[in-house]
Amino acid sequence: MTVELISVGTEILLGNIVNTNAAFLAEQCALLGLSCYYQTVVGDNRQRLFDTLTLALSRSDVVILSGGLGPTEDDLTTEVTACVFGRELVEDPHTKEKLAEDFRQLDIHHVTENNWKMALVPEGATVVDNRNGMAPGIILTGTVPGQEKAGKRTAILLPGVPGEIRPMFTQDIVPCLRSMQSEGIYSHMVKICGIGESQVETMIRDLVDAQKNPTIAPYAKTGEVHLRLTARADTEEKAEEMMAPVLAELKKRFGVHLFTTEESVTLEETIVTFLKERHMTVTTAESCTGGLLAGRLLNVPGASDVYREGFITYADEAKEQILGVPEEILETKGAVSEETAARMAEGAAAAAKADAALSVTGLAGPGGGTQEKPVGLVYIGCQVGSTVQVREYHFTGNREKIREYAVVRALTFLREELLS
Amino acid sequence: MTVELISVGTEILLGNIVNTNAAFLAEQCALLGLSCYYQTVVGDNRQRLFDTLTLALSRSDVVILSGGLGPTEDDLTTEVTACVFGRELVEDPHTKEKLAEDFRQLDIHHVTENNWKMALVPEGATVVDNRNGMAPGIILTGTVPGQEKAGKRTAILLPGVPGEIRPMFTQDIVPCLRSMQSEGIYSHMVKICGIGESQVETMIRDLVDAQKNPTIAPYAKTGEVHLRLTARADTEEKAEEMMAPVLAELKKRFGVHLFTTEESVTLEETIVTFLKERHMTVTTAESCTGGLLAGRLLNVPGASDVYREGFITYADEAKEQILGVPEEILETKGAVSEETAARMAEGAAAAAKADAALSVTGLAGPGGGTQEKPVGLVYIGCQVGSTVQVREYHFTGNREKIREYAVVRALTFLREELLS
Repeated sequence: MTVELISVGTEILLGNIVNTNAAFLAEQCALLGLSCYYQTVVGDNRQRLFDTLTLALSRSDVVILSGGLGPTEDDLTTEVTACVFGRELVEDPHTKEKLAEDFRQLDIHHVTENNWKMALVPEGATVVDNRNGMAPGIILTGTVPGQEKAGKRTAILLPGVPGEIRPMFTQDIVPCLRSMQSEGIYSHMVKICGIGESQVETMIRDLVDAQKNPTIAPYAKTGEVHLRLTARADTEEKAEEMMAPVLAELKKRFGVHLFTTEESVTLEETIVTFLKERHMTVTTAESCTGGLLAGRLLNVPGASDVYREGFITYADEAKEQILGVPEEILETKGAVSEETAARMAEGAAAAAKADAALSVTGLAGPGGGTQEKPVGLVYIGCQVGSTVQVREYHFTGNREKIREYAVVRALTFLREELLS
Repeated sequence: MTVELISVGTEILLGNIVNTNAAFLAEQCALLGLSCYYQTVVGDNRQRLFDTLTLALSRSDVVILSGGLGPTEDDLTTEVTACVFGRELVEDPHTKEKLAEDFRQLDIHHVTENNWKMALVPEGATVVDNRNGMAPGIILTGTVPGQEKAGKRTAILLPGVPGEIRPMFTQDIVPCLRSMQSEGIYSHMVKICGIGESQVETMIRDLVDAQKNPTIAPYAKTGEVHLRLTARADTEEKAEEMMAPVLAELKKRFGVHLFTTEESVTLEETIVTFLKERHMTVTTAESCTGGLLAGRLLNVPGASDVYREGFITYADEAKEQILGVPEEILETKGAVSEETAARMAEGAAAAAKADAALSVTGLAGPGGGTQEKPVGLVYIGCQVGSTVQVREYHFTGNREKIREYAVVRALTFLREELLS
């Protein structure tokens, strides 16, 4: 089954916003095993939207449109879709009642007339409640006048707001798309840290070359590699059965580097969970990452159980006074050195009375690099219990990228030390 | 003049990457005053790329293609473009020499044959050197066989790697597009903080309603509002002259809330610059933002002059021990309270011997909220000199969004206190 995406919105054409909805929908469709050959962005313009939708329906079984469902004059998606399918717009009583309830909840008593436009849907369409907003989703299946030979086509109209389209797609549209296919597609995301992308690819080349069902596809993230494992089967149980031996093989090959097989689990979450289970605490002492490492750990809900305090020691005096890095080391070895990283981790663990500590000191640039210590040189210290270890890294990229890499490497380092 | 964007790459269709190139190109084209009505994404497929490019050239004066210029078999953009224009591919000697030099620099002596494909360009095309990669950009102008009536069209082929396409577009393609237009387009980005988007829109409605040349368009960012001021004129001087009175009016209306009129300047940069000029230092004490505020300040190169150390005090004991927040306040008022925020800022300034301090304490959720103190409640403390002030905020959104808002509001708060 082929699917095609149309994003409706002048703000995308003007570059005011990045089209993250398209990336989300594309990934979700790929996960469902749908083939997507085109994505189009078109503005809030009747004729151009009409032409674009007509062309899309001529070449794809399903067209997913996002945006342009609101109450303003600019919102044309429903109207134009009805027109392309040669249907009338009719009022959906259920949606009208829901809108009235929404307005009551918002304490809005004088609802302007244009808002009721959101209750108009093409005749024969299925309406999907919007639990996170007003305009409902719409599913319309039928033949397109002038394209009768192509058979039945489906248009799926979704709101443009990310907070509305994502849950609606996951909860309501995925089951609908699954039901339109003879086989279901099920997947796992195998996440690996501490091994580079090219090495991961080499390590699974034989599996990829031999793959049929399930399939494996690698995705590179900063400092992580994700492998999407996808199986086609009649039922979820059968799919899981087919994926089990491949998952076992990947676990065997990547060992401790494989940190989860679940889409939603993050690296920092696995660390927080691990620490929580063992009633351990962690702290951070950051120089060049300046708070980003702590910020990432603390994005995990409930991280307060394992993280009590941390330190940003940007200046040499701060490293000395807060973390107790000896002045002599800072003078002879420098702030960016193995010794400083080690003393920072030890000092942080002691100051915070934490069971584990991470330290980061390096040159994020753009200035400050020398032949001996170039921009991108970062030392990461990791103390677990009474053992402190330091690793040296050479990152490339701009200031932002170098700091981002340092954060992921530090998390990876801590995870390895905790597991060993 | 109309322009249209085609992004070539299966990885975009699969949702593996977000199409940030399209947003970049769209914004740049809007800045140049070009009208863009369509963006299309198509995979590495000869026939579909041919159809897409042919359609685009039938309705737009200029088509900008990105991606698919590399040396592999999948890279079809140059070949298909030549085909659409009915041109032969010929070797460009200058590019061949540059490629050879690039390989020498990389110490690669056995260059595989397919790499020389990057030196093949459609007959009559203009080649644009790629200073950040191998595959050159290509500009081709001419009539399209079968569409002769439409007159001359231009295809601009650019590499897909963001680090290559961005500098190439800015340095080489912008002047080319400017030269194709009778008038030039010049702009400023007016950045405002501390006022909400709808209030900004109300404050400039009369200017927007009366606008012709220059024009004003608002863009919302988390916690900031950006206004793009654009003028059309023969020369840059004339455009600046036309924008000057509007800039002056905006400065008058928004006063201290307007923090820059330059595209590249960030809020944190203006703060670091301000502090640097006055030889002042700042520190941070963060609870719910857990390092992100410091991380943002320290992303400014050279921030070490103004930021020496900072504290992440997630646990109550950390607030007490590191920042000296009295136990009594934590017990009676709670960690998320005006009083705690005030004592955190004071304690941080004292501990770091800094001239200014920001503190953040709040509930980022998802758990932990109560009727009295709901998720999204954040107190921000700001000490400058010996005066400490606290503001209460109620943010909406998920954990990430609440933390992001808190960071921007804290920066805005500090800026206002520094200026007052």
